[in-house]
Amino acid sequence: MTLTAQTQAIHEDGGTWTFPPSQPLVLDSGARIDGLEIAWRSFGTLNADKSNAVLICHALTLDQHVAGKHPVSGKPGWWTRLVGPGRPLDPARHFIVCANVVGGCMGSTGPASLNPATGKPWGLSFPVITIADMVRAQAMLIEAMGIETLQAVVGGSMGGMQVLQWAVSYPDRLFSAVCVAAAARHSAQNIAFHEVGRQAIMADPDWRGGAYALHGSRPEKGLAVARMAAHITYLSEAALQRKFGRELQRDGLSWGFDADFQVESYLRHQGATFVDRFDANSYLYITRAMDYFDLAAPYGGVLAEAFRKARDVRFCVLSFTSDWLYPTPESRHIVRALNAAGARASFVEIESDKGHDAFLLDEPVMDSALAGFLDAVDGARGLR
Amino acid sequence: MTLTAQTQAIHEDGGTWTFPPSQPLVLDSGARIDGLEIAWRSFGTLNADKSNAVLICHALTLDQHVAGKHPVSGKPGWWTRLVGPGRPLDPARHFIVCANVVGGCMGSTGPASLNPATGKPWGLSFPVITIADMVRAQAMLIEAMGIETLQAVVGGSMGGMQVLQWAVSYPDRLFSAVCVAAAARHSAQNIAFHEVGRQAIMADPDWRGGAYALHGSRPEKGLAVARMAAHITYLSEAALQRKFGRELQRDGLSWGFDADFQVESYLRHQGATFVDRFDANSYLYITRAMDYFDLAAPYGGVLAEAFRKARDVRFCVLSFTSDWLYPTPESRHIVRALNAAGARASFVEIESDKGHDAFLLDEPVMDSALAGFLDAVDGARGLR
Repeated sequence: MTLTAQTQAIHEDGGTWTFPPSQPLVLDSGARIDGLEIAWRSFGTLNADKSNAVLICHALTLDQHVAGKHPVSGKPGWWTRLVGPGRPLDPARHFIVCANVVGGCMGSTGPASLNPATGKPWGLSFPVITIADMVRAQAMLIEAMGIETLQAVVGGSMGGMQVLQWAVSYPDRLFSAVCVAAAARHSAQNIAFHEVGRQAIMADPDWRGGAYALHGSRPEKGLAVARMAAHITYLSEAALQRKFGRELQRDGLSWGFDADFQVESYLRHQGATFVDRFDANSYLYITRAMDYFDLAAPYGGVLAEAFRKARDVRFCVLSFTSDWLYPTPESRHIVRALNAAGARASFVEIESDKGHDAFLLDEPVMDSALAGFLDAVDGARGLR
Repeated sequence: MTLTAQTQAIHEDGGTWTFPPSQPLVLDSGARIDGLEIAWRSFGTLNADKSNAVLICHALTLDQHVAGKHPVSGKPGWWTRLVGPGRPLDPARHFIVCANVVGGCMGSTGPASLNPATGKPWGLSFPVITIADMVRAQAMLIEAMGIETLQAVVGGSMGGMQVLQWAVSYPDRLFSAVCVAAAARHSAQNIAFHEVGRQAIMADPDWRGGAYALHGSRPEKGLAVARMAAHITYLSEAALQRKFGRELQRDGLSWGFDADFQVESYLRHQGATFVDRFDANSYLYITRAMDYFDLAAPYGGVLAEAFRKARDVRFCVLSFTSDWLYPTPESRHIVRALNAAGARASFVEIESDKGHDAFLLDEPVMDSALAGFLDAVDGARGLR
C-alpha cells in the first residue's frame, strides 16, 4: 500500500496476486497454467457493499499502470485523462483496478516467466492464450478481491475486446461496459499486420526459436520492426501528414539511408524505445490472442447471440472517425448486435483525425461521453 | 529480335542498351554512372516518321516485361490487359517500349551490378537515385532509339510518378501522359511504410551492410518481411476481407504460430516468392527514390509551376476509390495543378474495392478509360 505525494489523498495499491495450485487458469486451448501470477494496480477504496469497483483492461503493449506514476518510465499512467480526482473514473468514488494481461510482460505470468515445472523461462512452450483467457484471469483476480459485480469494465483497443468478452463470459458480474476503438473480431487486415510483426520477430536470429532468454540475447531488431509496422496503423494518414509531412531531419537530403525524414526518425525511435519495455515473445502471444478473437464464432457467427445473456448490461461503444485499424463499421456491428440482443447500448462516433491512438490522446468529446455514461450508471446504482 | 509463336505477327524486340563512356548518367545527387546499361523490351514497330512510340514505366517491383512472356517466370507480362493485339496499346499501331529502371535488378544498372571502377558489385556504394534519374535514363534510351517525341508515356504507381516527371523534365518530348494510381509526392505514411521495409532488410544479418553478394548470402528473411508489409498496402481492407476474411488454412486453430489463417499463408507466400525475383539493395534504392519524390519541391512547392511548360501535353489521370496508398485526393491534387497550369487533363476516379493493386487487375472501366484516351490522342496525331 502506497500513498504517494503526487496523488495525495488517493488510496493507491498494487502488487502481484499468486493463485494457489488449487486454482489453475484453464485455457481455451485446453492447456492450464498452474501458479498463475497476475500483476495489478488499484486506485481508490472498495466501498462497504463492494459496488464501486471498476476494471480497466489495457491494450496490446500497455500495462496495469493506468494512472499514477509508471514505476519504470517514471511517466504518468496511460489513461490519467480518465482516471484521477475529478476525472470520469474518480478514486474518490470508484475502486479502480487494472491488471496486466496473462501472456504479458509486466508482472503477470507470460512467456518470459519461469515455468514452475522446469524452472526455466516458458518461451514458446507457453500455451497460446486468448482474449477469453485474459478475461478469465481477470475474473479470478476480481473474485479473489471479494468483488462480485463490477460497476464497469472499461477498455480501448484490445482492452475493448476484453470488455466485450467480459459481457459474454460473465454477464452477471458487470453492471456496465465501455468499449472504445475496438472490434468484435480481428479482420483479415488486422491479422495481416500482426503476422508481419511476428515474422519480423521470428526472422531475427537473436529470437532463437523463442528461447532467447536462455542465450542471453534479445530479438531487438525484429521487435523494433514489428513495432514500427504496428505504429503506422495506430495513426491516421492525416495525423502523420500533420505531424511530419515531408519535413526533413536536417537541411537537405542525405542521399543515403539515414533517417532523412522526420517520420523515419520518429518510427525508428518508436521501435528503439519499445524493445526496452516489451518482451518479444509476449508480443507474439498477445497478437495471436487478438487474431484468434472472434466473439461470435462460438455462437454460429451471430454476434447478437453472443450478447444474449448480457441484455442487462449497460453498454457504451465509442469509435473514432479516422481509426482505420478498428474502423467505425466494426463498432456499428457491435451496437447492432447489442440492439438485436435487447441490451442498452449508447454509441458515439467521435470526429477525430488522430487515428486509432485517439483513445489515448486528448479527445475532449471522448472524455465527456465517458463522463456522461459513467455518471449515469453510477446514478442508476446509487453510487452518487 | 524475336518473333514468338504466341504473339504471331507481333514484332517483339528487346535487349540491353549500353551507353558509351561519353554518355554518363548524371544524377540528381551529383554522382554519375558510367557505362550505364538499360534493359528494355519492345512490342510493335516504329513507323517511318517515328510518331507511334509509347513508353511504359513500371512500378516498384515490376520490370520491362509488360507484355509477352516473362523470361524468368514464364508468366504473361504484367500489363497484357492493356498491351497486345486489340488492346488499348496495340503493337499493330504502336511501338511500345518498356525499360527496367536504373537501380533495378532486371538488367539495368543497379546496386547488384558490377561497378566498372572496382569490378565488384556496387552494393551500398551505388549512388542514391531519384525518379528524375530513372526518367533521365529512359530519355537517353528513347533518344538512342532515334525517337524524338513519344506519343504517350504511360504508367501506374511508381510508373505514374515517372510519367509526371517526364512531363516536367521533357515537356517537349511527349504528346500525352497517362498517370494511374500515383501521386506527385510521397506522403508521410508512404515514407513510413517504406522505412519499415528498409529497416526489415537492414536488420537481417545476411544483409551485411549491403555487401551480401560478396559473402554469398542474401537477406531473404528481411526482404520477405518488407514485401509482406508493403503487400498489405497494395490491397484494400475490403479486398483482404473478401479474399480471406478469417478463413483458416486447416480445420481448427493450431494453437501456435503456424499460418492458421489463409491471409497469413498468403502473405508468407508473397514474401517467399518475392525474394526469388528481387534484389534487396534494389528494394532499398527504389523505395528511397520514391520517398524522395516531390515533384513540386524544386518549384517552391507549387505543383502547377512544375507543369507550366507541359501545358501542351494531353494528360489522363486515373485513381481508384479504395486505393489507400495513393488515394484519390493525390490524383485530384495533380489534376488541379494541371488545370492551373493550363494543361488538358482528363480525370477518372474508378469505383473499385481492389485497392492500389487495381491498376494491375481486371478493371474494365480502367481499360475503357485508357482506350478512349489513347484513341483520342492517336486521332489527334493522325495515327489512326
